[in-house]
Amino acid sequence: MSDLPLTPAVVVDLAKAEANIFRFQAYADRHGLAVRPHIKTHKLGLMAALQLAAGAVGITCQKVSEAEAMVDASPAVQDAFLTYNILGEERVARLRRLAERITVSTVADDEAVVAGLARGFAGAAAPLSVLVECNTGAQRCGVSDPAAACRLALAIAASPGLRFGGLMTYPPVGGEATVQAFMTEAKRLIAAEGLGCERISSGGTPGMWHAHVAPVATEYRPGTYVYNDRSLIARGVATMAECALTVEATIVSRHDGRAVIDAGSKVLTSDLLGLEGHGLVVGHPDIAIHALSEEHGHLSGEGLSRLKVGDRLSIIPNHACVVSNMLDAIYLRSPDGSLERTIVDARGAVV
Amino acid sequence: MSDLPLTPAVVVDLAKAEANIFRFQAYADRHGLAVRPHIKTHKLGLMAALQLAAGAVGITCQKVSEAEAMVDASPAVQDAFLTYNILGEERVARLRRLAERITVSTVADDEAVVAGLARGFAGAAAPLSVLVECNTGAQRCGVSDPAAACRLALAIAASPGLRFGGLMTYPPVGGEATVQAFMTEAKRLIAAEGLGCERISSGGTPGMWHAHVAPVATEYRPGTYVYNDRSLIARGVATMAECALTVEATIVSRHDGRAVIDAGSKVLTSDLLGLEGHGLVVGHPDIAIHALSEEHGHLSGEGLSRLKVGDRLSIIPNHACVVSNMLDAIYLRSPDGSLERTIVDARGAVV
Repeated sequence: MSDLPLTPAVVVDLAKAEANIFRFQAYADRHGLAVRPHIKTHKLGLMAALQLAAGAVGITCQKVSEAEAMVDASPAVQDAFLTYNILGEERVARLRRLAERITVSTVADDEAVVAGLARGFAGAAAPLSVLVECNTGAQRCGVSDPAAACRLALAIAASPGLRFGGLMTYPPVGGEATVQAFMTEAKRLIAAEGLGCERISSGGTPGMWHAHVAPVATEYRPGTYVYNDRSLIARGVATMAECALTVEATIVSRHDGRAVIDAGSKVLTSDLLGLEGHGLVVGHPDIAIHALSEEHGHLSGEGLSRLKVGDRLSIIPNHACVVSNMLDAIYLRSPDGSLERTIVDARGAVV
Repeated sequence: MSDLPLTPAVVVDLAKAEANIFRFQAYADRHGLAVRPHIKTHKLGLMAALQLAAGAVGITCQKVSEAEAMVDASPAVQDAFLTYNILGEERVARLRRLAERITVSTVADDEAVVAGLARGFAGAAAPLSVLVECNTGAQRCGVSDPAAACRLALAIAASPGLRFGGLMTYPPVGGEATVQAFMTEAKRLIAAEGLGCERISSGGTPGMWHAHVAPVATEYRPGTYVYNDRSLIARGVATMAECALTVEATIVSRHDGRAVIDAGSKVLTSDLLGLEGHGLVVGHPDIAIHALSEEHGHLSGEGLSRLKVGDRLSIIPNHACVVSNMLDAIYLRSPDGSLERTIVDARGAVV
């Protein structure tokens, strides 16, 4: 890298990210599945624009402030799906203002959420499309069974200012058969009430290559696939060569069989995702990052004998999405090796 | 709270923070110990100003960018100690520019670090004060024994542009006796070479009420004490009433004995610090935050029966310092209950 920044720094290899985008888009195209990437992984207007140019139908965000930041960052963002119960008068008002700028859809898993959205969209120029979030086993949000999904669909359809937009789920890993069964039954019940399910949305990078096993779904929302990370290597979903995001760090201290790097939990985060240690040290499989403090990464292993103070290391983090959220800016590496500092548009957007 | 912001939000109770500052300052004054607070916990110019007004002799930072942000944020910051090996020509040049604005001291635990600092401060108007970092058992950075500390002290003293400033350690919890023994012996060896130790600096909130057990130290660097957190309650160092920082969250989903709040790892972080779960829910000891995803906190426990979608909760996080680093702004609560949005000056400063 020609103009390597001060470490620690987050570097994203553009060619790898684009290859990751194209690979899943091609799979989805083959199976007639719309792609609606979750921007939580990159939080970058320019990366969303690449995903949309490759064929994505829109973006997915969790929070209103994330969607606002993405729309502000890129004119390519014209359609955002908020897969989160949007609560509170002020927040729903922000959602309505967003819906006046671009196409917006959201979810609900509770009548209280539907009622709040309906109050906020009363008299809106166009009704807000609301999908029913369904719990297909991840035990996070979502109605518990197809009958409850049908009841909430009817409540949405009966609310002025809203229209029923379909069904959405964030499934557990390996949950494709459950998604297929739940959604097929919910769609049948809803159809019996005279309503159509224009979208059935599923997601998650861990299950993305099995998305076709739940053909009832019409769209898929992968997030981490754009960068990949150590957790996806461990699951067999990605290879090391497909990991586009690395943390660049420097050895700052070296004593008695231990070494410390300048990347701690303020860059790598404490996310384990079931793994041991805090990242893969590229090219040094015999070195582990066994502990983190805020500004220190603690290395151990036989490979330390090769390293001295000042040496640089590249690290594939356990979880790329949370690393993107730690720094105001990352560095995009072009195929010619040049680096461009890029503000992370939706960093820290949690409301 | 009169004008409660959208959740999730970080709120700091100013009166509690001030009481925490005064309490430790009084203890340190009683024992003739200088206080040099680590700003990693609050990252706020105004909070550093309160600490300095209460009697602190200066601030402590890890990284150059942190110190720059603090100096930019408050004219009260006139003395910063960087307890980190500062490496690389560009970074040392930034340290030198900082040293032209305020009084700066730093540490080294290696001759390569000393050599880099000496190159960068060649011809400086005033020499840079460099303390030797000592490993007193935390196994992070630091020379391993008093003889090595003495050798590095001599190397610093012999370097044009630098002067030997004393000894520094980040001790393990309960390590006061080791600190006392290590520092006493190192000071004796260094004195035998004709050098004085003007500062012997120890730190860490977990051990702060035992700081007087290592009377060889001349200054102490507590960080978390300003806010406290669940980890310090668990260690018996602070009470719940002394926790100044809370995360305000809203129940967004409620089904079948589970509930989800809108604060996930993007606010609470995944730091466990040896604890189970991800924070204390104030007023609800029978509710646990048993898991986090990025935007979802997963609650369980009997107390959930009292809660419905839209209810607000206050959470004392496991680790206050890392929570301060997640959002661009926090809310300071005054004794009259009013809230003021305040930019976190040194958020994300890692280089």
